[in-house]
Amino acid sequence: MTTLYTNETPTAVKEAKGLHLITEQTPNGKKVQILLEELKDVYGTSWTTSLLNLDAPNPEQNKDWFLRLNPNARIPILIDNTQTPPFVVMESLAELLYLQETVDKDNVFGFDNKVEQSEAVQWLFFWAAGQPMQSQNNYFSRTEQNPVAISRFSAKTLEMYGVLELRLSGRYTAGPRDFLAGDGKGKYSIADIGAWPWLRAWKRTRISDEEMASFPHLLGWIARVAARPAVERGISKFYDSEENPELLVSTEK
Amino acid sequence: MTTLYTNETPTAVKEAKGLHLITEQTPNGKKVQILLEELKDVYGTSWTTSLLNLDAPNPEQNKDWFLRLNPNARIPILIDNTQTPPFVVMESLAELLYLQETVDKDNVFGFDNKVEQSEAVQWLFFWAAGQPMQSQNNYFSRTEQNPVAISRFSAKTLEMYGVLELRLSGRYTAGPRDFLAGDGKGKYSIADIGAWPWLRAWKRTRISDEEMASFPHLLGWIARVAARPAVERGISKFYDSEENPELLVSTEK
Repeated sequence: MTTLYTNETPTAVKEAKGLHLITEQTPNGKKVQILLEELKDVYGTSWTTSLLNLDAPNPEQNKDWFLRLNPNARIPILIDNTQTPPFVVMESLAELLYLQETVDKDNVFGFDNKVEQSEAVQWLFFWAAGQPMQSQNNYFSRTEQNPVAISRFSAKTLEMYGVLELRLSGRYTAGPRDFLAGDGKGKYSIADIGAWPWLRAWKRTRISDEEMASFPHLLGWIARVAARPAVERGISKFYDSEENPELLVSTEK
Repeated sequence: MTTLYTNETPTAVKEAKGLHLITEQTPNGKKVQILLEELKDVYGTSWTTSLLNLDAPNPEQNKDWFLRLNPNARIPILIDNTQTPPFVVMESLAELLYLQETVDKDNVFGFDNKVEQSEAVQWLFFWAAGQPMQSQNNYFSRTEQNPVAISRFSAKTLEMYGVLELRLSGRYTAGPRDFLAGDGKGKYSIADIGAWPWLRAWKRTRISDEEMASFPHLLGWIARVAARPAVERGISKFYDSEENPELLVSTEK
């Protein structure tokens, strides 16, 4: 007996087959959306998608049916219905690793080599800890207008961006890199997909054009990833519940 | 030609063989210290250790020799000198995964099963994003005394603790759990080691005894992990540069 689904669980979720993604158009959702779109281009991977309105008055992610899938009440979550019982993966970066290990058989978005794969994992964890600096920067700038906190998280965001710039500049390695992980100039991988949706949105964060201009390699990387067709699809209106209400799931009457 | 070491790199680091850990007695350092001590008990794993004084006037972690090893200027870092060139792992949680995958051949601290291993990885990422809430709580409580930020990060820390409590209580799964990942009651693993050093230090965070009493399963888990001999050694004075100055590395004259 699985306790995964209840009477309240939306049918689109409960009756999904194969991979099912519950997401919404946020930077964290986009990570998994992008990797699925990339896997589709390489392997023809298919999945179904449910979207949540995170700003609803009584939001789904705080309800019992959702907490059974992720006690952390956050999207995206990936449900693998090919497992018995269905296996739920929470945490966007863990979802990238799960998809890379289970679907990406040829390691197109990861690495055969343990050392290079560890590099990718290191940059995923770097970003997992760095990302809250940017999100708190956004929060305090937009919501609280608290100068002390804004100053701290602006500095912390720039510090994280500076580490990525240092990595991509290759100052301490073999020269400029195209991507975060892998030998030589690196290879586009889950390490890039994990960080990119936040970095691309730097203009919505309290970072000036002048500050950003001091990260030329990072700007090059943002543009390089943005140019990929799967990335374009992964951040498209398809994943926005306002634009694509057919995929919206809600238990409200 | 590796660009890993320079003339400035301390000899203890440059001439280390096998696994070399650069650490200091912080919650992040303790994660890797604990896993190495655990691996020693199971496999007889050996390594050497260098300690840094993070509060030195001109701290080593900001110097060129260190940034070559970790551009993020943070301990702990693990250098695997059995690789050619030596392979550096940054980010404490990525170091746990690296050690588990390369040293822990029998998956004593991980899982043979991909699904259970993904659970461990999910809780590592959960904590990677949760940990900054506790560290910012500490910062604003101790250093800035900023009421708005203290209030936010106190609430966020309790929210993260609440998710762990929910997981360990087993309310949505098969009943109370002993550990974060694994079937049934779970198995002690890197998922627990990754979070524990922060959770055990809850008294140094702005959390009241009354608040903590609302997390009985979490308190049980903290005590359960603390009782392990390797955990006791992993947080011992051996790893404190004030207590064990022989392991301190410094490039200051």
